Amino acid sequence: MSNTFGKIFRITTFGESHGAGNGVVIDGCPAGLEFDEAFIQAELDRRKPAQSAIVTQRKEGDIFQTLSGVFEGKTTGAPIALWIPNENAKSQDYTHLAYAYRPSHADYTYQAKYGHRDYRGGGRSSARETVARVAGGAVAKLLLKHQQIQITAYTAQVGKVILTKDYHDLDFSLIDQNPVRCPDLPTAEQMEALIREVRKEGDTIGGVIACIIKGLPTGVGEPIFDKLHAVLGKAMLSIQAVKGFEYGSGFAGVSMRGSEHNDIFQTDEAGKVRTLTNHSGGIQGGISNGEDVYFRVAFKPVATLMRPQPSIDGAGKEITLEGKGRHDPCVLPRAVPIVEAMTALVLADFMLRLRLNPLL
Amino acid sequence: MSNTFGKIFRITTFGESHGAGNGVVIDGCPAGLEFDEAFIQAELDRRKPAQSAIVTQRKEGDIFQTLSGVFEGKTTGAPIALWIPNENAKSQDYTHLAYAYRPSHADYTYQAKYGHRDYRGGGRSSARETVARVAGGAVAKLLLKHQQIQITAYTAQVGKVILTKDYHDLDFSLIDQNPVRCPDLPTAEQMEALIREVRKEGDTIGGVIACIIKGLPTGVGEPIFDKLHAVLGKAMLSIQAVKGFEYGSGFAGVSMRGSEHNDIFQTDEAGKVRTLTNHSGGIQGGISNGEDVYFRVAFKPVATLMRPQPSIDGAGKEITLEGKGRHDPCVLPRAVPIVEAMTALVLADFMLRLRLNPLL
Amino acid sequence: MSNTFGKIFRITTFGESHGAGNGVVIDGCPAGLEFDEAFIQAELDRRKPAQSAIVTQRKEGDIFQTLSGVFEGKTTGAPIALWIPNENAKSQDYTHLAYAYRPSHADYTYQAKYGHRDYRGGGRSSARETVARVAGGAVAKLLLKHQQIQITAYTAQVGKVILTKDYHDLDFSLIDQNPVRCPDLPTAEQMEALIREVRKEGDTIGGVIACIIKGLPTGVGEPIFDKLHAVLGKAMLSIQAVKGFEYGSGFAGVSMRGSEHNDIFQTDEAGKVRTLTNHSGGIQGGISNGEDVYFRVAFKPVATLMRPQPSIDGAGKEITLEGKGRHDPCVLPRAVPIVEAMTALVLADFMLRLRLNPLL
Amino acid sequence: MSNTFGKIFRITTFGESHGAGNGVVIDGCPAGLEFDEAFIQAELDRRKPAQSAIVTQRKEGDIFQTLSGVFEGKTTGAPIALWIPNENAKSQDYTHLAYAYRPSHADYTYQAKYGHRDYRGGGRSSARETVARVAGGAVAKLLLKHQQIQITAYTAQVGKVILTKDYHDLDFSLIDQNPVRCPDLPTAEQMEALIREVRKEGDTIGGVIACIIKGLPTGVGEPIFDKLHAVLGKAMLSIQAVKGFEYGSGFAGVSMRGSEHNDIFQTDEAGKVRTLTNHSGGIQGGISNGEDVYFRVAFKPVATLMRPQPSIDGAGKEITLEGKGRHDPCVLPRAVPIVEAMTALVLADFMLRLRLNPLL
Repeated sequence: MSNTFGKIFRITTFGESHGAGNGVVIDGCPAGLEFDEAFIQAELDRRKPAQSAIVTQRKEGDIFQTLSGVFEGKTTGAPIALWIPNENAKSQDYTHLAYAYRPSHADYTYQAKYGHRDYRGGGRSSARETVARVAGGAVAKLLLKHQQIQITAYTAQVGKVILTKDYHDLDFSLIDQNPVRCPDLPTAEQMEALIREVRKEGDTIGGVIACIIKGLPTGVGEPIFDKLHAVLGKAMLSIQAVKGFEYGSGFAGVSMRGSEHNDIFQTDEAGKVRTLTNHSGGIQGGISNGEDVYFRVAFKPVATLMRPQPSIDGAGKEITLEGKGRHDPCVLPRAVPIVEAMTALVLADFMLRLRLNPLL
Repeated sequence: MSNTFGKIFRITTFGESHGAGNGVVIDGCPAGLEFDEAFIQAELDRRKPAQSAIVTQRKEGDIFQTLSGVFEGKTTGAPIALWIPNENAKSQDYTHLAYAYRPSHADYTYQAKYGHRDYRGGGRSSARETVARVAGGAVAKLLLKHQQIQITAYTAQVGKVILTKDYHDLDFSLIDQNPVRCPDLPTAEQMEALIREVRKEGDTIGGVIACIIKGLPTGVGEPIFDKLHAVLGKAMLSIQAVKGFEYGSGFAGVSMRGSEHNDIFQTDEAGKVRTLTNHSGGIQGGISNGEDVYFRVAFKPVATLMRPQPSIDGAGKEITLEGKGRHDPCVLPRAVPIVEAMTALVLADFMLRLRLNPLL
Repeated sequence: MSNTFGKIFRITTFGESHGAGNGVVIDGCPAGLEFDEAFIQAELDRRKPAQSAIVTQRKEGDIFQTLSGVFEGKTTGAPIALWIPNENAKSQDYTHLAYAYRPSHADYTYQAKYGHRDYRGGGRSSARETVARVAGGAVAKLLLKHQQIQITAYTAQVGKVILTKDYHDLDFSLIDQNPVRCPDLPTAEQMEALIREVRKEGDTIGGVIACIIKGLPTGVGEPIFDKLHAVLGKAMLSIQAVKGFEYGSGFAGVSMRGSEHNDIFQTDEAGKVRTLTNHSGGIQGGISNGEDVYFRVAFKPVATLMRPQPSIDGAGKEITLEGKGRHDPCVLPRAVPIVEAMTALVLADFMLRLRLNPLL
Repeated sequence: MSNTFGKIFRITTFGESHGAGNGVVIDGCPAGLEFDEAFIQAELDRRKPAQSAIVTQRKEGDIFQTLSGVFEGKTTGAPIALWIPNENAKSQDYTHLAYAYRPSHADYTYQAKYGHRDYRGGGRSSARETVARVAGGAVAKLLLKHQQIQITAYTAQVGKVILTKDYHDLDFSLIDQNPVRCPDLPTAEQMEALIREVRKEGDTIGGVIACIIKGLPTGVGEPIFDKLHAVLGKAMLSIQAVKGFEYGSGFAGVSMRGSEHNDIFQTDEAGKVRTLTNHSGGIQGGISNGEDVYFRVAFKPVATLMRPQPSIDGAGKEITLEGKGRHDPCVLPRAVPIVEAMTALVLADFMLRLRLNPLL
């Protein structure tokens, strides 16, 4: 039950870090969508390893294959299956982990829940699984493009290096022009320096990704349990290493007075209802109000270190884990397209639900 | 689709703030559970208005009726419907709001989404709807009691008054002994003073609720999309006025190094796998590891003020909203049982899913 | 999980035969639908007991109350809860059944599955539960009226009395003008005579209900698992006492040659694609083709007899069940509106799903 | 939404008749199940083309590959993806059909619903899609074997050749020993002769498959909407070419009196509750009662004929379809494993749901 996301536009993912590959089945994608394979591959390329000096140097081509659901360049309404074979699954790198419980990984909990586990590179619990999400999210983005909805995520914090500028003052075109994916170049340089330093120490560091949705019409989201921000929050919290989610004024808003926090309504020249401020983050009562939606996602430092750590094995015996392999010292740069993909999946689903009333 | 929560243990809620009442249908509750009506009523009493001087003085008895699913004091496996009639629905208090869009409320978004709306007290968007969640959550708590799982929420911050103590150093028995529901009495007094001050100004204030789950076995939660913290996050973010969710180290964890943040495994005297620290918040790879689960929920200041505010009406005309009626200056004290109820609903559902493997 | 039906237009039912009453929550009904209470009550009246001499003489007013989801005469998009109190729940009539397993009833299976059971009148397993389905189905019918879709069910067979006319030759206005709900009066009289005879013997008899859907547009239904006829079949088979379902040529079609059975396509004067014959029953590949949809539903003889039967009790002891109470000798007349209600629920759901493609 | 089946043990299928292949993702299969690849392949072999002289001579190896979810010979709890490449997809055979609407096929309804379609061999609407169901069903069967549940389907009727023997008098070991899959050899020969005759005429013929479930414990199935027979019915009606479903006494039972039809309870020597007859087909109130479950499924004659037929094309122009290609004159022999597979999927799902009550 846990490998499917969405109600109308639904993805089901499968695959393991060091198995044959990873795949996604997209069910509920409308027929007639132009299937822009180059765009999908470009999205996968934004996530793939070894794209810059500050991410893991593991080599994966991450070239996807379309198994079903597309005919003569368009979606048919049938389920779209995409498959990304693993190219570089050196299982021998991981045999020393067959019985180890790596700290702050899912080895122990998977073993306890399932009785045995695919220990090769973390198996299903590896963040490699997100390659399938990005593939599915790219198809969702194709659908959202028709509706003039833009999703932009960027690195807003690495360790204690914080991008303090308001998002309105940022040039989003800079995001993919630096390896950290931060749209402010001086801050990006500080972040990159910090990541290099941390990596030199065999250590890792966390950070925050911000995401802005522009062009979302009023009325997106459902009251009560499927509030737009509740589903976005679940989507973000389902990404490996995420520890927190806030939207609009977020945690900082709790110490504001209502009289400061309330977003006053006005009507603009075109007669459109707007708010003077946007502490609501574009969502009121769980439903979009036509303003920008924005939220922030906290990522913990990567659990795999390039230095020895004490742990135990499956028999409870104390062991020392050596740091080896090729790993990210900071997950943020590669997580930016993952945050966007999950956001696109949420919005594609809600945009379809928006159409359900024949009486309006 | 949006009024149902849960996969196996599922609730569907219905009702409006100033309609006939609010109800909940609980489907999937195991048969044979002793239906402790006094406990359920006590949970509703913890949430109800007018229980102290710092919450709304609106009078609601919030006495529930059992419509189905219980026979001879036990659940039968049939859906359990609980109904809480509205006693104090003075619609005339609200007719001045029929065409107004209250700032930071859901009036505008409901109108835009549905074409018309029940404007009496916010209709379905009112936090009064949570009475049905608390009723459903109380039944979930009855089930969790059999499994020795305890859920404890408390007010951890009001405005800038922050409870800084670690939860291990708190006496949870104090929570319900003060009107703010903060387990540290000196802090509780400061919080209460702040709420009184804010109320005097006709203003409101937000805060943070912390929640601790003890006794949860290893293995609860599902990998990938239904991670335990992702579903808890969605549950919390679905509560009115919530702006953020974090678990374990949360947003603060992002500036830690991996070497500080990793929770080292050990085996205790009884042979049980434990972690030395608990930055993971009891969850690894989305699955409980047997340690305490803890998380924090941010609530914005209440949007309804007891002072005039500018706004517009449905025709786009500028109006001034007068503050009247009986409202909470701070939602935190009454939100504590709501956070617990949603937590109980998540856990009851996951505990049932935990049983699904006949091979283990 | 089992008390909810539908994906977008969803009902959740609750209640027992001799408890407080029966209810339905309708979630996903579009906002802005005129809520025609008189129509809903009229549908309930078509199902209620004691409406003619050949059905049970048990008295139930079956007057429904609207608990939520309707404001100023229209649906609001919020869940609509309808409640039908039980007026005539004389539990004392049933205490002799507390430990008995009535033959071909659900007493034994409920006891085995749930460990205890509400034995008053069959509790949740009673066909009284269908009152909630008819209420929900009436709302679905209101929605379908906007779309010019008509659903007509009638009694096509009672015991060996078979209505042999093709449905095109029948006058549907006669259906509700005779107690059997058969649109051919001479056949209706034979059916009625058979039911009277059977009742005199303290016995019961089964039959077949036919159902015709007119005005359904092309494209309704989903390929693969949610084929239109598969979901209709599930809906019908979920009704108490139903033993079979067939659509189009049905079981009789199996002995036809493909060359006889195939429905040849033609274009009518208006350029519309039509078929010369309709062995397909208006559905091809699970999707409506614009022709009439028709199907047949088999009902077994009612299990409750007005004569003694041997059985056992919960301890395995042999007992004799006396026939008492007020029961239907034949369920068909009252099942006609139930078949229509379930059909309406299926179609309302599919009609909403039909709108999901923004590209068409 | 329509490509997923099941609630706990769930399959999602994808693929087209003449695309790259067909696949299935099985989510919710318990961890630790021995993954018997030879058994799964054997099930696929029972369904595959060209296994006898009376089925299509199209060549497909139908060799499956395991893409995920299995490690060291056992399921891991992760989703299991199986992939069956198409070997023999000669699209050129079908280009003449690009614009034709074949009678009683899904060409027209798919075109109308989706705006364009994969016309190669019927695309997604082809019965080739069932290869994925059989693969998924084989995994379900592996799970059911642990629980001593046996599912046996066989051909009970072809055209007017009817197997009249009660299933208790049949030797199921004969089923796979004749090309028709009928357990009575003289009848099988008549059926085979009829199929050969029909094929010679370029025509096709329908039939009935019966299915018997032995070893099912009491308590399987859910009341109200997910009755065991309702879900079985939906599963069967979702198979291509199925026109009807009945269980227990079925359509024949409608002309019985209640006093004949009721299954009298008794206690056997071991104290187990049994019924004297089994008109209930092993299901009462939607829940299994421990007796054999049996049902029958009607299949229409195959729509593809080996002779000319009139039709129209997408522009409404009249055309003549020539019969060519390699097709089944009768679907029954190859449908037997499909019926079993869908039954296994239903039961695996319900058997897991059966475990959900921690109080029993």
